Amino acid sequence: MRFELTKEYIAEFKNLISNQDEKTVTDLMSKLHAADIAEIYYDLNIDEAKFIFLLLDGDKAADVLAELEEDDRIKFLNSLPSDIIAKQFIDHMDSDDAADILGDMSEERKDEVLSFINDVEQAGDIVDLLNYHEDTAGGLMAKELIMVNEKWDVETCVKEIRKLAQEVDEVYYVYVVDDDDILKGTLSLKRLIVSQSSTLVSDISNKEIISVKADLPAEDAAIIAGKYDLVSLPVVDSIGRLIGRITIDDVIEVIQEKAEKDYQMVSGITEDVEPTDRVWVLTRARLPWLLIGLVGGVFDTQVIGNFESALAQYASMIFFIPLIAAMGGNVGVQSSSIIVQALASNTIGYDSLFKRLLKELSVAFINAIILSALIFIFSFLFYDSIVLSISVSVSLVIVVVFASVFGTFVPLALDKFNIDPALATGPFITTVNDITGLLIYLSIAHFIFSNFS
Amino acid sequence: MRFELTKEYIAEFKNLISNQDEKTVTDLMSKLHAADIAEIYYDLNIDEAKFIFLLLDGDKAADVLAELEEDDRIKFLNSLPSDIIAKQFIDHMDSDDAADILGDMSEERKDEVLSFINDVEQAGDIVDLLNYHEDTAGGLMAKELIMVNEKWDVETCVKEIRKLAQEVDEVYYVYVVDDDDILKGTLSLKRLIVSQSSTLVSDISNKEIISVKADLPAEDAAIIAGKYDLVSLPVVDSIGRLIGRITIDDVIEVIQEKAEKDYQMVSGITEDVEPTDRVWVLTRARLPWLLIGLVGGVFDTQVIGNFESALAQYASMIFFIPLIAAMGGNVGVQSSSIIVQALASNTIGYDSLFKRLLKELSVAFINAIILSALIFIFSFLFYDSIVLSISVSVSLVIVVVFASVFGTFVPLALDKFNIDPALATGPFITTVNDITGLLIYLSIAHFIFSNFS
Repeated sequence: MRFELTKEYIAEFKNLISNQDEKTVTDLMSKLHAADIAEIYYDLNIDEAKFIFLLLDGDKAADVLAELEEDDRIKFLNSLPSDIIAKQFIDHMDSDDAADILGDMSEERKDEVLSFINDVEQAGDIVDLLNYHEDTAGGLMAKELIMVNEKWDVETCVKEIRKLAQEVDEVYYVYVVDDDDILKGTLSLKRLIVSQSSTLVSDISNKEIISVKADLPAEDAAIIAGKYDLVSLPVVDSIGRLIGRITIDDVIEVIQEKAEKDYQMVSGITEDVEPTDRVWVLTRARLPWLLIGLVGGVFDTQVIGNFESALAQYASMIFFIPLIAAMGGNVGVQSSSIIVQALASNTIGYDSLFKRLLKELSVAFINAIILSALIFIFSFLFYDSIVLSISVSVSLVIVVVFASVFGTFVPLALDKFNIDPALATGPFITTVNDITGLLIYLSIAHFIFSNFS
Repeated sequence: MRFELTKEYIAEFKNLISNQDEKTVTDLMSKLHAADIAEIYYDLNIDEAKFIFLLLDGDKAADVLAELEEDDRIKFLNSLPSDIIAKQFIDHMDSDDAADILGDMSEERKDEVLSFINDVEQAGDIVDLLNYHEDTAGGLMAKELIMVNEKWDVETCVKEIRKLAQEVDEVYYVYVVDDDDILKGTLSLKRLIVSQSSTLVSDISNKEIISVKADLPAEDAAIIAGKYDLVSLPVVDSIGRLIGRITIDDVIEVIQEKAEKDYQMVSGITEDVEPTDRVWVLTRARLPWLLIGLVGGVFDTQVIGNFESALAQYASMIFFIPLIAAMGGNVGVQSSSIIVQALASNTIGYDSLFKRLLKELSVAFINAIILSALIFIFSFLFYDSIVLSISVSVSLVIVVVFASVFGTFVPLALDKFNIDPALATGPFITTVNDITGLLIYLSIAHFIFSNFS
């Protein structure tokens, strides 16, 4: 019932294309959902892709194009003339998808494509949407929606729906406005169906409207849609006039992109990459944080250099250098990621900074005592040196506590200044805590060794 | 228009509760969405929470309860008698939310609550749903849906919707079945509204059904709903009979939980925690990976111990120990997280393991050469030792390449054996690469120093 893409299917599909078997390919694609064809697309080269797009009718071709990853879509469209893009694709798309595509083009190319669009209303909608930044609610919304006047009755509503049914997909609600287009409520199709024809819209509409302003960040709009379980979120201008709606598929995309971005940050990757990307793209995404790690390592050499004579004198101090550095890094990443995730999902609570750090201190202290006790026992049993054991375990407590507080404080501070707190996770926290941990350990060990051994 | 929870609002709200001002509290809550009241709930103690729940009518009380985090909900319900739980909450809930709540209870308590439910059909639905594991499509689905026979006409459909309208919320589609309840298609309310009363359902229904079996893992069901942009996903039994539907809010929840889990894994946290959790919970979530890191550090001491005399003789080898360990860890996390994310989003592609590792090798090699060249220049300029510079840069190439391949291979292997590949990210990869990196570096440096200096 559901399509499962296999290696064999793709091989067969590519074979049919190379035989120019238009009929069989068309038949196969007629059974597939646009999202499935998009999945197949990734295994085709540009010529094969052109072949299948020419066989699809306008609506389905537009749907497939809308499903493609941005990079692939740009590459494919670059190989097509502007009039084909306009007539084969843009004319058949929802305004939000069309605006996304035109937003990726150069000014010149964009104007050329717009000039080839047949439907003036569609072209107008796209131009309107291009005014909004892509990371705002306005950048997510589509203009296609059904608007009804609060003074209408159910019968007039139904007529309006009939009129617009072809043009607007995914209609679950109609939006109720006054004579000035100010959003006054929503009316579900279910409610509409179960009401009498003569009932006034304003008597059955839901007036507890949840809407967002067009300039709200896209991520905030997605959080709101998710919080209130909305399948579409109306967007209003600064005086409350309805100007568009965000559909749930866009909400899910924003949620996923945000989650992927945070995940990449904590893993030290600076771009959205897939294993299928080219070597150069994958390298570019990974090099920046490695360079920062390298600079951190260079600082480490300096820290150790400062303790060169101590390390020569008390060689057993060296043994625990990697352990201390690693623990500082691990603890720091844990602390910062709890804060980053809570900020992202809005479950951070209302505690004051002081209370928050105090709590973090308690957690850190319990962990630190347990870890220190274990390492004390190990080092005492294994190296039989009370001086070494005390040095390592005391340092570990201080390093763990420091790393926790630092890992908690930095993302909170970044968030305060409206910088993405996820920046503070991963390699940054690890690197800083490596160096600090090393400095703390060597200082304490040096002091204890030189005074008590 | 939209509610923003502030510290002041909560203080005022708690003040009204302590004054037992039922009227004002009821008024305030009538203006709030259930999701907003749930947000306020987190700042109330059990007695305050009971006070507000008693003021809410059954439907809204049930909605608020469904919005609460699982832990908080369990705690609150533990303080209530079974008959109140049944009559004030479960009777008013959707079957999926009700089953989630009863699924968290002991067998005894569950049976007691079930015995107090007035609506026999609701009790039956809940008992049915409790048979499915919570991590499957069956565990996500609700029984509330509108089913129409393919032989009916539009008018009969509308009558059915009128009949069930009270009971079923969020109706966007009706499901078309044959006489045996086998799912045959879907029919959107929009299509229903624009069609003539006498039209046959089978003539206007969408027969390209996307459905899932009840035993499909919940995460796979969410991926399917997301891929095909569905606002609700029908669930069928093994012979294709319609048994429930998954709504989009549950899909979003699964997507978010999966993303949070992966994020926690890569950060070394073993439970879903919030900064507002108790100190003990936060400690418990963080200790396991720290212990693994500690064991890794203990291995590090052994590795260094093996090179003790070499390190005493060639002291400058010590300087670069933290750098090499950190780079191995960073590179390993990057490689593994790219694979984990691609597996999660199904963008992994169809390359063979060999081709994949070859590509990873190329990326690793380019990064390694750049990093090595930089560290060569630094160490040569700063320490003026060609032996040290060669040791460090050669080791760095090998460590980076090894960490990349290891970071790519391990999650792929885990996935092959149906173990969550995310397990391989974060502290595990870091710890293994720390130790291996150290061993590689000290071996190479020892060899070069003892032969060429």
